[in-house]
Amino acid sequence: MLYSVRMRSAQGGAHEAGGRHISGAERLVPEQHIERIAGEMVARALSHSRGSADFINITIDKVRTDELCTVPLLTVKTVDVPHAEAGRKAAMAALVQTGVSEQAVQAGMEALLALPDSMRGAMLLCAETGKRLDGTGQSGVRVSRMDIADDQDYRQCLENLGLTNVHVREALVLASKVAAAPGVVAELCWSDDPEYTAGYIASANGYCRFTQLKSYGSPVGGRVFFIRPGIDLEALIAYLRRQPVIVTVK
Amino acid sequence: MLYSVRMRSAQGGAHEAGGRHISGAERLVPEQHIERIAGEMVARALSHSRGSADFINITIDKVRTDELCTVPLLTVKTVDVPHAEAGRKAAMAALVQTGVSEQAVQAGMEALLALPDSMRGAMLLCAETGKRLDGTGQSGVRVSRMDIADDQDYRQCLENLGLTNVHVREALVLASKVAAAPGVVAELCWSDDPEYTAGYIASANGYCRFTQLKSYGSPVGGRVFFIRPGIDLEALIAYLRRQPVIVTVK
Repeated sequence: MLYSVRMRSAQGGAHEAGGRHISGAERLVPEQHIERIAGEMVARALSHSRGSADFINITIDKVRTDELCTVPLLTVKTVDVPHAEAGRKAAMAALVQTGVSEQAVQAGMEALLALPDSMRGAMLLCAETGKRLDGTGQSGVRVSRMDIADDQDYRQCLENLGLTNVHVREALVLASKVAAAPGVVAELCWSDDPEYTAGYIASANGYCRFTQLKSYGSPVGGRVFFIRPGIDLEALIAYLRRQPVIVTVK
Repeated sequence: MLYSVRMRSAQGGAHEAGGRHISGAERLVPEQHIERIAGEMVARALSHSRGSADFINITIDKVRTDELCTVPLLTVKTVDVPHAEAGRKAAMAALVQTGVSEQAVQAGMEALLALPDSMRGAMLLCAETGKRLDGTGQSGVRVSRMDIADDQDYRQCLENLGLTNVHVREALVLASKVAAAPGVVAELCWSDDPEYTAGYIASANGYCRFTQLKSYGSPVGGRVFFIRPGIDLEALIAYLRRQPVIVTVK
């Protein structure tokens, strides 16, 4: 039996009271690990590079075994770029390769660059027109209820790739769930950690990291999901938010 | 600097999704204890005598020092009664002594006895007419953000009184906050723990325990606050829910 353990933290009050989003975390764990994982999430929220949270919410709920589905971990590739501008240019070209229109890629990049501060969740944009599709404003759609099948295997796999950063560990699991979603063409993301400049684009074809997508020191990051036109948006959002997904290392 | 750490747990989904309330907990603790306290709350929710929770929510937020107020711990008296019926009769007489009308006492007792299951919070009844005043239905008004000033002192004080049960420890802190509220005449409460039959009435004059207020095995408990007519109900509910209160042992 697994439990979804998820955390969100903010500064200046709760998110819903206008607080600034600091950090979030998602795990699916057996009962005997809940206490430890919840404790680790608290510790992390209190000492985040974006600032110390003064509001932390942890929600734990049981996941029905028959609800669980598994998706494969995306393959990872890293592209070295000399600076953020070059990284963004390369990421935009790669997004077009996944089937997102140039217009939508441009709109997605502009939407991320225009963010006044980080969002808790993702913006959903039409992969053809670039128009924002979700009606969630500055909150965004949070992807929840996912974890890796085997933590040890996963660490080993990431180490073999030379990737030990916690951001990659979490983002790759999230991106694997998202890329498997019905109707998602691709994702564009960079971190809100001021010390972490790398970002990625992901699609069913893989996870492609760019060593620099934003400037060092910027506390603003975010996610854009490019969505195939005409799909059932409500079902997609339900999948992203509520479908428990275990990501398997091949 | 103190943090409010509060937990609510339910079975069959979240409270707001119709889940059955299992347990709650409230603490005000310094930062270095948050992790441990949150962990303890999780463990408790998963092994409660009312059943194992499948939904747990923990909220942590910083309390501004200038918001804190202190109230004295109520004095405690225990009345031995041979059975629940005798206990309820004695409690009703004691409530009338605190200034609640006979009609309101009757209404309060009936409201608690008629509960189909435990509520997360308390029912607020007019101390004259017995009419329900809060509009919170089956949720009730939850009393939040309070703790004892010195845990060691408190344990010693309770031990001296022969009281070591966790229910008394928590209820006495809550009752001390409630009794100090503007406009609260008295409280009537018994636990939803099926194994714990004792209950109490409390007012500014003290906390009076009755060894039996409900039958052994009943998982239904609750709280009624009797409110002086004409007071500012909104301000009272805000105090109960949000005012951080430290209860001092004299």
